[in-house]
Amino acid sequence: MQTIISKDNAKLKAVRALVRSKKERQETSCFVMEGVRALSALTDGAALPQYSLKEAWVSDKVATASLPRFDPDLPIFQISHEFMEQLSDCHTSQGVLGVVEYTPVPLEIHPDKGNYLLLDRLMDPGNMGTLIRSAVAFGFDGVLLHGDCVEVFNPKTVRATMGALPFSNVWKQAEPAPDSSSNGWKNGDEIFQCLEKLGYELVSTVLRGGENLYEMEFGPKTVLVIGNEASGISDEILERSSRRISIPMSGNVESLNAAVAGSICMSALCR
Amino acid sequence: MQTIISKDNAKLKAVRALVRSKKERQETSCFVMEGVRALSALTDGAALPQYSLKEAWVSDKVATASLPRFDPDLPIFQISHEFMEQLSDCHTSQGVLGVVEYTPVPLEIHPDKGNYLLLDRLMDPGNMGTLIRSAVAFGFDGVLLHGDCVEVFNPKTVRATMGALPFSNVWKQAEPAPDSSSNGWKNGDEIFQCLEKLGYELVSTVLRGGENLYEMEFGPKTVLVIGNEASGISDEILERSSRRISIPMSGNVESLNAAVAGSICMSALCR
Repeated sequence: MQTIISKDNAKLKAVRALVRSKKERQETSCFVMEGVRALSALTDGAALPQYSLKEAWVSDKVATASLPRFDPDLPIFQISHEFMEQLSDCHTSQGVLGVVEYTPVPLEIHPDKGNYLLLDRLMDPGNMGTLIRSAVAFGFDGVLLHGDCVEVFNPKTVRATMGALPFSNVWKQAEPAPDSSSNGWKNGDEIFQCLEKLGYELVSTVLRGGENLYEMEFGPKTVLVIGNEASGISDEILERSSRRISIPMSGNVESLNAAVAGSICMSALCR
Repeated sequence: MQTIISKDNAKLKAVRALVRSKKERQETSCFVMEGVRALSALTDGAALPQYSLKEAWVSDKVATASLPRFDPDLPIFQISHEFMEQLSDCHTSQGVLGVVEYTPVPLEIHPDKGNYLLLDRLMDPGNMGTLIRSAVAFGFDGVLLHGDCVEVFNPKTVRATMGALPFSNVWKQAEPAPDSSSNGWKNGDEIFQCLEKLGYELVSTVLRGGENLYEMEFGPKTVLVIGNEASGISDEILERSSRRISIPMSGNVESLNAAVAGSICMSALCR
């Protein structure tokens, strides 16, 4: 374990950049994940192979006894509690974080049966992370990000997944840059053509006027769509949807939180 | 409309204190709520009578055309966009906020039928606000805060309710201070004795081993219990519960977000 004291240390600066800069995360395919339990899943090989732990950072306040059993070859850096707090997205940091490398995997939709979540221009990192966490909990096979969604590897998104991120497959439309062309689909239409060809039903959640969530039967191949927090699902996707569902509500409120609505539907779908 | 230019203006300082200080909110029984739609509900009398709008603050960037139709006697203060951003809890403020006074109402549990949500030591303001929003959406009759919960009038809680707060009845154990003795119950036991006497079923949500949420029938008088984000429901409440329920999950995740879990249960209960 190497102790880093200077705030200008190059390794420390690199982690700080990962926390703060989306560009840095995109260029390095790395992101920062906090917490002993979350890192343990990576360490014991329970997570998907596309997520791999590159280095760990611990604060000097953390007893090494509570650390995950890291690979003996894993670089570990010790820093002050103060430095750790600066890196942490949490109110009170656990004092352990990891730099995780993500290797994009090609989009793969199960041909026989499957449940996928499609997020249309979701903006809030907390909602995104919570939906990924729920999607993993309800055994969904993947999350498809459509349009201009908030970044998956944003520290707030990662935190809201509460360690579920490395168990999830998240795909989005491939960026124009050639080096990221292997992940996701090339243009907006491609993903819908792929889903349609495989016989998936696109089920859009709408505030009013859809089928009652609890009265409908879901087929073996479902793509559940959750829309933007303010404007809902785009007309383009609504037109492509074969069904619309609504969550029955009795009260005085216009809508539910997007992560709540999506999770209610995923739960009912898997009941 | 009065324009305030000095950052040291006493009225402006008072609002700033309401945003920042729990003590100030408790002493004045006032809190700050943002957004045109949320304030409209107070203005048009749709909200519960215990919430009343005392004054409105608008930024100089807001077209007065989009303001709610405030009572002509309501004091309105105009401030700079910069001041508004300092007061706002939002990333980009709508430029309108109100000071809302809350008059505590005595705890009242419907004797014949009703659904209540009991939150046991809930810590996260976002979760609290989201649960209040969902409770209103699913027509719950009230939210009972048990133990050391996060403050309802915390700006982050209020924001997460997305305007639903003034439609909700939220009660908590009365503070020792004599002036707040009218709201809620006096000691930890009192609320449970009251619920039991009226024949309410205490239904605790647990991670594993409870009845399947989707297979159980709820009675006409239900208190749904959601526990602390880290430690769940306290032993004391679990022992008092007549039933335990679990949300069926298939995936690799230990738990759901507390607001998600509570909302799934409320939705299923009202289906």
